[in-house]
Amino acid sequence: MLKLSRQYLNWIQNSVFEGEITEVKLKELKQRAKNMMEPEEDSLIIFKSRDVKWLEKETVGKEKNELDTFL
Amino acid sequence: MLKLSRQYLNWIQNSVFEGEITEVKLKELKQRAKNMMEPEEDSLIIFKSRDVKWLEKETVGKEKNELDTFL
Repeated sequence: MLKLSRQYLNWIQNSVFEGEITEVKLKELKQRAKNMMEPEEDSLIIFKSRDVKWLEKETVGKEKNELDTFL
Repeated sequence: MLKLSRQYLNWIQNSVFEGEITEVKLKELKQRAKNMMEPEEDSLIIFKSRDVKWLEKETVGKEKNELDTFL
């Protein structure tokens, strides 16, 4: 699946998180991430969409991933 | 970093890929992913933005990840 996806797109990150977050909470997350990460090795990429209607989401395969519980 | 991110957002996927792709190529990718995945286990989530100006992107830490080369 990694190999397949890389034939079409560029790999950019190891894990994906999703959710609605306030500007204050996002600032806090970024600050805590900065304090924790190795600046030459790690990265956190944030995609923001101001309105959910501008971002189309489609799932192929299993809708919810229960692996979540184990991480 | 996983633990930190999960305090603010929901974990949804293991790898992230990014890029511009045509509708035809995306259809091909989805079909090939379907053929390859375990429908009860795997998932591919696609976020589409029709215009790059609707999607704000920000990076904290290292801008480009050379790990890309090894996957």
